[in-house]
Amino acid sequence: MHSFKELSAQFEQKFNTRQFPANPSSLYDPAQYILGIGGKRIRPVLVMMGNELFDTLHNDALQAAAAIELFHNFTLIHDDIMDKAPLRRGQPTVHMKYNESTAILSGDVMLIQCYEYLNKVQSTHKTKLIQVFNKAATEVCEGQQLDMDMEQKLPEQVQYDDYVYMIGLKTSVLLAASLQMGAIIGGGSEGNQQLLYDFGKNVGIAFQMQDDYLDAFGDPAKFGKQQGGDIQVNKKTFLLLKALELCNPSQKELLLQLMVQNPADKVAQVLEIFRQCKVDQWAEQEKERFKARALESLEKIAVVSNRKQALKELTDFLLIRQH
Amino acid sequence: MHSFKELSAQFEQKFNTRQFPANPSSLYDPAQYILGIGGKRIRPVLVMMGNELFDTLHNDALQAAAAIELFHNFTLIHDDIMDKAPLRRGQPTVHMKYNESTAILSGDVMLIQCYEYLNKVQSTHKTKLIQVFNKAATEVCEGQQLDMDMEQKLPEQVQYDDYVYMIGLKTSVLLAASLQMGAIIGGGSEGNQQLLYDFGKNVGIAFQMQDDYLDAFGDPAKFGKQQGGDIQVNKKTFLLLKALELCNPSQKELLLQLMVQNPADKVAQVLEIFRQCKVDQWAEQEKERFKARALESLEKIAVVSNRKQALKELTDFLLIRQH
Repeated sequence: MHSFKELSAQFEQKFNTRQFPANPSSLYDPAQYILGIGGKRIRPVLVMMGNELFDTLHNDALQAAAAIELFHNFTLIHDDIMDKAPLRRGQPTVHMKYNESTAILSGDVMLIQCYEYLNKVQSTHKTKLIQVFNKAATEVCEGQQLDMDMEQKLPEQVQYDDYVYMIGLKTSVLLAASLQMGAIIGGGSEGNQQLLYDFGKNVGIAFQMQDDYLDAFGDPAKFGKQQGGDIQVNKKTFLLLKALELCNPSQKELLLQLMVQNPADKVAQVLEIFRQCKVDQWAEQEKERFKARALESLEKIAVVSNRKQALKELTDFLLIRQH
Repeated sequence: MHSFKELSAQFEQKFNTRQFPANPSSLYDPAQYILGIGGKRIRPVLVMMGNELFDTLHNDALQAAAAIELFHNFTLIHDDIMDKAPLRRGQPTVHMKYNESTAILSGDVMLIQCYEYLNKVQSTHKTKLIQVFNKAATEVCEGQQLDMDMEQKLPEQVQYDDYVYMIGLKTSVLLAASLQMGAIIGGGSEGNQQLLYDFGKNVGIAFQMQDDYLDAFGDPAKFGKQQGGDIQVNKKTFLLLKALELCNPSQKELLLQLMVQNPADKVAQVLEIFRQCKVDQWAEQEKERFKARALESLEKIAVVSNRKQALKELTDFLLIRQH
């Protein structure tokens, strides 16, 4: 049983070497570059914690963790192309630093490399691990596609529930699958695997909700992003979609007008409407609701309570009030 | 033991159903579209022939064959984006019919789907099959990257041997791996697997050589392409690179000038130089050399001669003089 910090250090020690051959460097340097610009390595640690919930840490968890981290970084490269994002973690994105073709291809080779790691695990649970990985990987692609489809729609055409479904696929199933893969390696029962998966999925949704909230209402100094960045670009967030449901007809009209007209004080005006229709309070409650649902699943897992400590601490760390 | 036609029909029967879920259709329709615009299904049949060389056809060969065909189509989608190709087999490419982001993502989900098929094979040979598949898949990406790198160079900066190496990765290793995967399923020894792999790799190189030759010297009516298409766009082919090696300084100067100046009779003039330095004869010999090398490997495989008949016929069919 180890803390996030200990597991993260153990993972980095293994992962912090070159993951790819030297040549062709034009293919592999970009893949190595994205791995080098950091990230919190939450997903691989979740694999390890999922394992430790049921048994001592197995080497297979490190293999699966590497696969999950590579997959996550592969999605970042390809998503950044699709989103035309210039920066990632303050550094140029792969398609900007190199070029788009190389970014497509480096992503592809990273996805293949995931299965090299998965193919190294013991054959007793290989089939099940690849199954869970493939399901999540497919759903992440579906989530990204649904996200792009939603971007083409007007805000009033997007239902809040559809957004929750999309964001669940795009961001939460990989967290959930990471935990489940760890549980498989640790020998957890199917029932316990499912509970752990549900825990991860709900933590992920709560985290996204918090992220949307902080973008609007958080302290920019603490949060490290420009306040109202999502509002500026009319991003469909939990807040916007729920506001459109909650607010009265005149507020709704003003909100939609602001999104078209982009006045200089757009962020302040939108935030004012958000506050008026109490979507800020709603978001906090909703986040707590998903967090509670997550902890309820964790509670039900049939292992002694102290084995759950690391996951509880991680939940508090991820879902703390940073504002 | 079945013919190409019989195996192809058997594969189509299994494969010719929808490979993907209905929704989100914006993600899966493009993937299904590329599968629907045909192709000769050579690679999946090679898996089945590799199996039948050693044993009766096993259901796992059909799973592996589906994985290989999906992988091949995934590379077509992504390569077409990189090459900015408008058409594929006379139909709009995926990124033209839909859009580039969808083409990236549909390709990704097809690559994941390959491993769903591979994950269905018996666990006795699963690890080895995924290993062989991953190695080939990685090499195909390397080949595509090397090809793009070469495109950035002047023709006189590209060595003929480097081109053979590149084209081997980009087009031949997947044929070779298809056969080897079949051999694994059929229970062929490691030595026989390697011989069959070498056979496939050399057939692939000979085929590419023939393709380059026919583009320049073939009968457009039979070949179905505009004569000299490669010459028009200054594509680095076996012929061009070898011509630059074989021709005298004044021919070389003229050749490089033609590539820059693009006169109306460029194709005719380039073909004239090709003939003068006898690169047409050389190409035929070279193709025969690789074909002979392929057949030599096939010959050495330790199974009774009549089991090799289907592969011999396929070689003759692929490497026939169509001009």
